[in-house]
Amino acid sequence: MASDEVKKVSLAVIRRLPKYHKCLGELLQKNVERVSSQELGRILGFTASQVRQDLNNFGEFGQQGYGYNVEQLYNEIAKILGLNTEHKMVIVGAGKLGQALAGYGDFERHGFKILALFDVNPNLIGSSIRGVPVHDMKDIIYFINENEVDIAVITVPRENAQEVADTLSQTLIKGIWNFAPVEVKAGPGVIVENVHLLDGLLTLSYRMNESRLTQKLKKIHEE
Amino acid sequence: MASDEVKKVSLAVIRRLPKYHKCLGELLQKNVERVSSQELGRILGFTASQVRQDLNNFGEFGQQGYGYNVEQLYNEIAKILGLNTEHKMVIVGAGKLGQALAGYGDFERHGFKILALFDVNPNLIGSSIRGVPVHDMKDIIYFINENEVDIAVITVPRENAQEVADTLSQTLIKGIWNFAPVEVKAGPGVIVENVHLLDGLLTLSYRMNESRLTQKLKKIHEE
Repeated sequence: MASDEVKKVSLAVIRRLPKYHKCLGELLQKNVERVSSQELGRILGFTASQVRQDLNNFGEFGQQGYGYNVEQLYNEIAKILGLNTEHKMVIVGAGKLGQALAGYGDFERHGFKILALFDVNPNLIGSSIRGVPVHDMKDIIYFINENEVDIAVITVPRENAQEVADTLSQTLIKGIWNFAPVEVKAGPGVIVENVHLLDGLLTLSYRMNESRLTQKLKKIHEE
Repeated sequence: MASDEVKKVSLAVIRRLPKYHKCLGELLQKNVERVSSQELGRILGFTASQVRQDLNNFGEFGQQGYGYNVEQLYNEIAKILGLNTEHKMVIVGAGKLGQALAGYGDFERHGFKILALFDVNPNLIGSSIRGVPVHDMKDIIYFINENEVDIAVITVPRENAQEVADTLSQTLIKGIWNFAPVEVKAGPGVIVENVHLLDGLLTLSYRMNESRLTQKLKKIHEE
C-alpha cells in the first residue's frame, strides 16, 4: 500500500535539511512565529518553489497564504533528522583530528554524546581529552555493544580506515562517520557517511578563480 | 557580448565538480582513456543526463557516441577548479584542528601548500607542527602580503572567528575556508567557504533513521 511505503528521498534533499533546521532554529531564537517559503528561500539562497518542493517530501507542512509555523516545522525537521533521540558516539583515533572533534561542542549540543575515544597508542590509552576517556582499541567491540553506541567516527590514518570499518561492522553500530581521506565500506545495515574535506577547498578554489575571471572581464568592458 | 560573459554556474554544480575530478583521476590511474556520461553517472550516482548537463556548463567536452576523453576532461576540470596554479595557505589557530589540518597530506598533493600556522598562544609561537612553523598572530598581515598567500583557513574558537576574518580582510587574501562553527563575513573580493561539520553528522543521523523505518516497515509487511 502506497501509504505504508517510506518514500525514498534524494540525498541532495537530505543534505539540505540540516540547513533548514539551522535556519529555523535561528528564527525561533528571534521569536519569529511563521515564515513563508519565499522568506526561507531568501535566507537560504533557494527559490521559494525549491523550498516547497523540498519540504513536501516529508508531508504537508505549509499552509497557503500563511506560510510555515516556525516552531512546528523546526520540531518536525528535528524529528526527521533523528534529533529527538540521543545518539551515543565513539571516536576511533585519538590523534589531533580525533581530539579536535572530541572538543567540538556543537555535537553534544545537538544530542550527539561522545562517550569515548579509542586508540592503539599506549601513551594515549588511559588518558582523557576534554573529559572524554581514551580506551584501548582492543576493547571497542565490547564497549560499543555494552553501551549501545550507535555512531562511530573514524579519524585514523587513510591506511587503517578500512580495517577499522571492518571491526566496527562486527558490532551493533548503526552509522559510521568517516574522516579518513578514503571511502570506506561497512557491513550490511551500517550507514557510512564519508567526509570529503578536500571538496570544500576545491569549491573555494573554483569560486576564487571564477571571481578573478569576472573581475578581469569587468575591467576589459570598462576600458 | 554574450560570449564575453562568464556564465554564472550554480553552487550545486560547482560542489559536484570535485567529485568529477576525483573520479576522473581514479579512471586515469587505471589507464581508462574514455568514459561515457552513463558510466560516469553510474560511478557517481547521477543520471547520464545530469552528467551531460553539469559538464555542458563549462563547454563542449563530450562527443556523441564517443564519450569523454578522460585525460582531457580531468585536466579541464582541474583548470576550472583552479588546480593548475599552486595555492599558498596559512592556518589561523594552531589548536588541535589547526594541527590536524596542517598534517593532512591531501591538501599539498592537490597543490595547496601550507606555509604557516598562526596563533596568539606564546607556548605555541616559535614551535613547528609537522614541519609547519607557528607564527605570532600579530605578524599575519605582513606575512600574507609578503608571501602572496591566497587562502587562509580559520580554526579558532567560534567567538574569535569573525575578528580573525576582519583582520584577514585587511590583507591581500583571496579566500577564507572557515571551520569555526559560525558563519563569518569578509570584505569585498574575499570569497568565504564556511564548513558545516555538523551537517554531515545530521545527514548520517537522518539516513540511519530512514533505514530503521524501512526495516520496520519491511518487518510489518513480512508478518
